[in-house]
Amino acid sequence: MTRNTPTREECARLDARDPLARFRSEFVLPEGTIYLDGNSLGALPAATPERVAALVEQEWGQHLVRSWNDAGWWEKPRDLGAKVAPLIGAAAHEVVVGDGTSANLFKVLVAALRLNPRRRVVVGESGNFPTDLYITQGVTELMGVSERRYDPRRQSLREALAPGDAAVVLLSHVDYHTGELRDMAEITRMAHESGALVVWDLCHSVGALPVHLSECGVDFAVGCTYKYLNGGPGAPAFTYAAERHHDTARQPLSGWHGHARPFDFAGEYQPAEGATRFLSGSQPLVADAALEASLDMWLRADLGEVRAKSLAMTELFIELTAAAGFGVVTPLPAARRGSQVSLSHPDGYPVMQALIERGVIGDFRAPDVLRFGFTPLYVGYVDVFDAAACLRDVVETGVWRAPRFSRRSQVT
Amino acid sequence: MTRNTPTREECARLDARDPLARFRSEFVLPEGTIYLDGNSLGALPAATPERVAALVEQEWGQHLVRSWNDAGWWEKPRDLGAKVAPLIGAAAHEVVVGDGTSANLFKVLVAALRLNPRRRVVVGESGNFPTDLYITQGVTELMGVSERRYDPRRQSLREALAPGDAAVVLLSHVDYHTGELRDMAEITRMAHESGALVVWDLCHSVGALPVHLSECGVDFAVGCTYKYLNGGPGAPAFTYAAERHHDTARQPLSGWHGHARPFDFAGEYQPAEGATRFLSGSQPLVADAALEASLDMWLRADLGEVRAKSLAMTELFIELTAAAGFGVVTPLPAARRGSQVSLSHPDGYPVMQALIERGVIGDFRAPDVLRFGFTPLYVGYVDVFDAAACLRDVVETGVWRAPRFSRRSQVT
Repeated sequence: MTRNTPTREECARLDARDPLARFRSEFVLPEGTIYLDGNSLGALPAATPERVAALVEQEWGQHLVRSWNDAGWWEKPRDLGAKVAPLIGAAAHEVVVGDGTSANLFKVLVAALRLNPRRRVVVGESGNFPTDLYITQGVTELMGVSERRYDPRRQSLREALAPGDAAVVLLSHVDYHTGELRDMAEITRMAHESGALVVWDLCHSVGALPVHLSECGVDFAVGCTYKYLNGGPGAPAFTYAAERHHDTARQPLSGWHGHARPFDFAGEYQPAEGATRFLSGSQPLVADAALEASLDMWLRADLGEVRAKSLAMTELFIELTAAAGFGVVTPLPAARRGSQVSLSHPDGYPVMQALIERGVIGDFRAPDVLRFGFTPLYVGYVDVFDAAACLRDVVETGVWRAPRFSRRSQVT
Repeated sequence: MTRNTPTREECARLDARDPLARFRSEFVLPEGTIYLDGNSLGALPAATPERVAALVEQEWGQHLVRSWNDAGWWEKPRDLGAKVAPLIGAAAHEVVVGDGTSANLFKVLVAALRLNPRRRVVVGESGNFPTDLYITQGVTELMGVSERRYDPRRQSLREALAPGDAAVVLLSHVDYHTGELRDMAEITRMAHESGALVVWDLCHSVGALPVHLSECGVDFAVGCTYKYLNGGPGAPAFTYAAERHHDTARQPLSGWHGHARPFDFAGEYQPAEGATRFLSGSQPLVADAALEASLDMWLRADLGEVRAKSLAMTELFIELTAAAGFGVVTPLPAARRGSQVSLSHPDGYPVMQALIERGVIGDFRAPDVLRFGFTPLYVGYVDVFDAAACLRDVVETGVWRAPRFSRRSQVT
């Protein structure tokens, strides 16, 4: 630790002044745990159980099929989309909530390729989250177009775009592995200049920092709601389509919820207005209820305050663990950092297991990365201080060498 | 009514002898309601609220990300698939639960077309449920194959298959509109003889009657779980893939949950064994918990008893409403009837609204069909008697002519 590193008392003073501190009581968290894995699964909002129970026991149990009208079930994908919209800098009618990130990626990639039919290449990073890579493979194989992956450590996006054949660029706004934040405005501009459309995966940025899709001129975006947005495990994902593409975009999972007049039960598909055409079939309303409880809380949060506290916490954590011998995978400049710190250690897996046993929950990603997510609504500065102290202690004492910490579970 | 039509007292005696009567107390239903819309949204099982609350408050709230391992979240699509399997005559490893019916139809249609690459036509009925038609359009447009729709009132499937170019036949096992049950064994045999693969949509048959996918040699099937299976509004759907296709089937929504080794985070997609390759991304676990509570109940139900009571109830309802002036859309022979009775009436919409106001809930499908679903686990013979009496009264007294019953709600 450097001389200027805050003490625990100074962290407590930061917590006392924290404008977001009032949100802490809006979450349920297990006793004795510091939860730094909200970048994987967000914590449970205190309002959620009651909202879910009301959906199950009243709307479903008592009102039954009438709730499609009376409880607004049919409109839920749009209503939830309107609540996600301000979090990503979009207009309400540009966002719908439904299906998972993988399916939504498939839809927008096909739609984007169709909007740019003279180009035949999808450009993306080789280290993107696997489902982005695999869905890109699924789309390109089916449509007979090709894929160009570049490794940003060896090649720039500008170089990858140089052949002038890119139809679509697909990137993650924040990298799931390194925690690196990409310059959405600059990359989108560069892609457009080269004649490509842009699809952003916001899974690791929505709810972690302000996102400005409209301002950056983004074409399409997808993202999940179960990480920083606290929508619940596997909660429905969202799809953003810029208004300028609403009349022309065609996605192939053309189910009846995306039809212009679904209750005509017409024989021919006719896409609905707005982002609604990106819907397919019925959505799990029980899961939607959980998500809505959380979004209603998020609408009261100031994303500028979230970002400021997030950067302060990630910086503090990097500082407090600097002397412990980890590699710092996450970029140090604030402008290139999401809300996550990734540290590397050759024995990262058992180190993380030992840390979890002591009540500090992060996660491990092969081959050697420990990930720590900092969620400003329910993690405070003292938590950061204590988590860093615990991590230093685990490494310095070597407790992680106990054989039980090396046993792999199926899911890491 | 004919002379042999049962009286209410005789119906009460049938209820008293009903081997399925014990299931009635396992459901929550609103007081004073006869619910005959379980073919649209199944009723709430009494065990569900507690199971959902346990998932939300304990597995998510207290155990957080660790539940992916400790609570079996990662395995849920396969575990739920294994619970659906006996209801559809499949082996456990042939079924997975996840995504919606529309997305799953897309996956299996593409997979089936790829398995039959010399054929270029998808054959289906013109009156199939719209999402089946629309997804077929989505698939055929994307793959550059064509579609042949036939109207079974004017042309037989044999005639539609005559050109010998069909790659895939897609049909609903029970028609959503008429309630007609198709001969799965005979149609599957006929399709195979013509060189086509078969995809069955089981939305209106699963949980309504025994389904024998393996025995009939079916290639692929999809179905929802929120109708007769009581999984909750918009509950996750299932996908069946016959074992013989497991090694060769390739679906394009190739997300990371369908990967052979997802936690390797490898760059290249490699499909998993078994039906797992039909998975894409994370599933809404809150909705899965509701579905699981219901499936655990269904595993105790005898589908032979369900079918026998279903046929007895639909027959009784047709008999009791015979003199009321409706057209009977549903086929009269038991072998061609699902668990639903569709009656036609030129003023079907206001008639249904008047009936609903009196506590008998069915639904209306344009242009003129009143649908009544009979769900043997929670509807009894006296319910059928009372519902029919109420319907007769609504029609005979003309109460449905009151203007308020003609006002259309957005969702019917």
